[in-house]
Amino acid sequence: MKPIKVGVVGAGQLGRMMALAGIPMGIQFCFLDRTVDAPAAGLGEIHLGSFDDPAAIGALAEQVDVLTFDVENVPATALRAVEDIVTVAPGATALETTQDRLSEKKLFHTLGIRTAGFIAVDSKESLANAAQRLGFPCVVKTRRFGYDGRGQRFLRTGDDIDKAWQTFSGHDLIVEQFIAFEREVSLVSVRAHTGDTHFYALTENVHANGILHHSNAPYGNRALQQEAQEHAQSIMEQLDYVGVMTIEFFVVNGELLANEIAPRVHNSGHWTIEGAVTSQFANHIRAICHLPIGNCDATGHSAMVNFLGTLPTPADCLTIDRLHFHDYGKSPRPSRKIGHATIVCDTRQDCEQRTAQLMKLYEADLQTPG
Amino acid sequence: MKPIKVGVVGAGQLGRMMALAGIPMGIQFCFLDRTVDAPAAGLGEIHLGSFDDPAAIGALAEQVDVLTFDVENVPATALRAVEDIVTVAPGATALETTQDRLSEKKLFHTLGIRTAGFIAVDSKESLANAAQRLGFPCVVKTRRFGYDGRGQRFLRTGDDIDKAWQTFSGHDLIVEQFIAFEREVSLVSVRAHTGDTHFYALTENVHANGILHHSNAPYGNRALQQEAQEHAQSIMEQLDYVGVMTIEFFVVNGELLANEIAPRVHNSGHWTIEGAVTSQFANHIRAICHLPIGNCDATGHSAMVNFLGTLPTPADCLTIDRLHFHDYGKSPRPSRKIGHATIVCDTRQDCEQRTAQLMKLYEADLQTPG
Repeated sequence: MKPIKVGVVGAGQLGRMMALAGIPMGIQFCFLDRTVDAPAAGLGEIHLGSFDDPAAIGALAEQVDVLTFDVENVPATALRAVEDIVTVAPGATALETTQDRLSEKKLFHTLGIRTAGFIAVDSKESLANAAQRLGFPCVVKTRRFGYDGRGQRFLRTGDDIDKAWQTFSGHDLIVEQFIAFEREVSLVSVRAHTGDTHFYALTENVHANGILHHSNAPYGNRALQQEAQEHAQSIMEQLDYVGVMTIEFFVVNGELLANEIAPRVHNSGHWTIEGAVTSQFANHIRAICHLPIGNCDATGHSAMVNFLGTLPTPADCLTIDRLHFHDYGKSPRPSRKIGHATIVCDTRQDCEQRTAQLMKLYEADLQTPG
Repeated sequence: MKPIKVGVVGAGQLGRMMALAGIPMGIQFCFLDRTVDAPAAGLGEIHLGSFDDPAAIGALAEQVDVLTFDVENVPATALRAVEDIVTVAPGATALETTQDRLSEKKLFHTLGIRTAGFIAVDSKESLANAAQRLGFPCVVKTRRFGYDGRGQRFLRTGDDIDKAWQTFSGHDLIVEQFIAFEREVSLVSVRAHTGDTHFYALTENVHANGILHHSNAPYGNRALQQEAQEHAQSIMEQLDYVGVMTIEFFVVNGELLANEIAPRVHNSGHWTIEGAVTSQFANHIRAICHLPIGNCDATGHSAMVNFLGTLPTPADCLTIDRLHFHDYGKSPRPSRKIGHATIVCDTRQDCEQRTAQLMKLYEADLQTPG
């Protein structure tokens, strides 16, 4: 039997972890990336090129059985252009809808999923009006290409409007109510070509400076788990989605407000590598390769801590019982996601205690010169 | 921090699974093998060469921080020659001792570990005498280079001696009592440079035609687990062992008889990839790279089934809940180990039921032409 070959647009850590999950099953990988030393290098051939170059995407598609992506900023038109020659999963429509905050919000509303209030704007005047209607503080965001806190600005008062307009002028914009949320949670789901859909446990996410700092799972609220699953099910059906999809929610007064959709494996699902029966990466690959979805049950209580900008010393971290260390092989830069650790324990208490141990150790490492 | 580079003599499925466990930790790999399309190809550079070529081993050693092996037939002298320039783990002494059935047996005896009766022979006369003394049936084996049932012959009566001598003449030989064992079990252990030693659960192994067919773990006999661990501890101390080591035992009248030592990760430990907190592969890499050993606890009941000569259809296998499919990317040949599946369940009963399902499906696939 000829091995299945998966092409991934982007060879970052997500592509790397997809390959590490797919290779054991005999699946082969190749990647499109701008550099030959990207994190997934060494796990498959790298085709040099830009993520937004339709010709480069077309050339990759020619050489594979299935095309997927580990970055969101792939032009949906380029994916649509190759859907006739290769399986593209998730498909161009799913990507297109979730790339644009406005169409994403409209999708939520069509399906009866609550969100923060929002208004699309296209001039300084409409921006000022929208902020007035939604009330201060509010947040102005570019409709496209925002992630990890980029492409957004907080509006405290009307005085912030001029500056925001200058910063983002030329981009399609959306203004959103500012949500003073209690928690951010995310749901990682996976859907097969057959429509078979499975869900991981809700994950609680803690951010620092707009970037995910650490996650804990399962969040452990049955009612919210059930509600989030229903939302994911309806979104995936609507988009005829295949593969892993992540929804971020705010928890406000004990209720869910949908924030955004990531049409891919997600940082908040990294705990599933060691903390679930089948990881999000293995399940993404299984789904897009027409293989049955694996069991998503959590095997215990997991905590995932991101390493941003600098790695702690592996030999120190690995003294912590039940800790798994991930180094993406990236060169360090401030705030850059260059690795993570996951701790999986039988009890939540053990997990919290060991996570505190890891964070203490990481902080000590950060303060050590050299 | 410069990444650690591990060189592996042999790029078979064991090297492949070492790399798949080490790469997430940021460790890099390169391999010495006779072919560029060996199972570990694609996970690190392949140096073309023979496992028993000291020059090729020397050249590999020059380029790495740590040298290990996934085959046993590496000349110990070649490893000893590079121990000054690179960490070699397990070391040349451990390899040398376990490569020779006679020195291995003597080691067991020195440490008070019981084995079947044995006599070394070097002529047809001494072979006949040994068989007479040990009693028929007995087994004649080459002292070196035997594995998966190769290099051994069953002696039913004195009439079989001529043929056995013809087959093996020129090899160093050992004659062993034939053991009508109830079970074969194996213990996978791991030891760090610091002497810190950890043990996996005893695994029960079922062979077909001399090749491992399937394994179940934990075996679940506390007294034998304890005894096996004590034996492993004393052997590893004696050999100043670093890395993963496996001991195979026969269970006879409820007691352990040591059969042989594999100075490496082992087929009977494949279940640890999904069925233990830290896999044998991750722990071998952690040990040889001077990183702390990870927790070896089993997370449930595991069954591992080898795919010999032919693979079942992945899409069929993966319909079985909690099954993990491994395809080594090898071309099929009769009896060749080309993949395996592991099923991990909370109860032994579930595990057995799903294993039966897998075996039925595999047999059906074997009978389907095409």
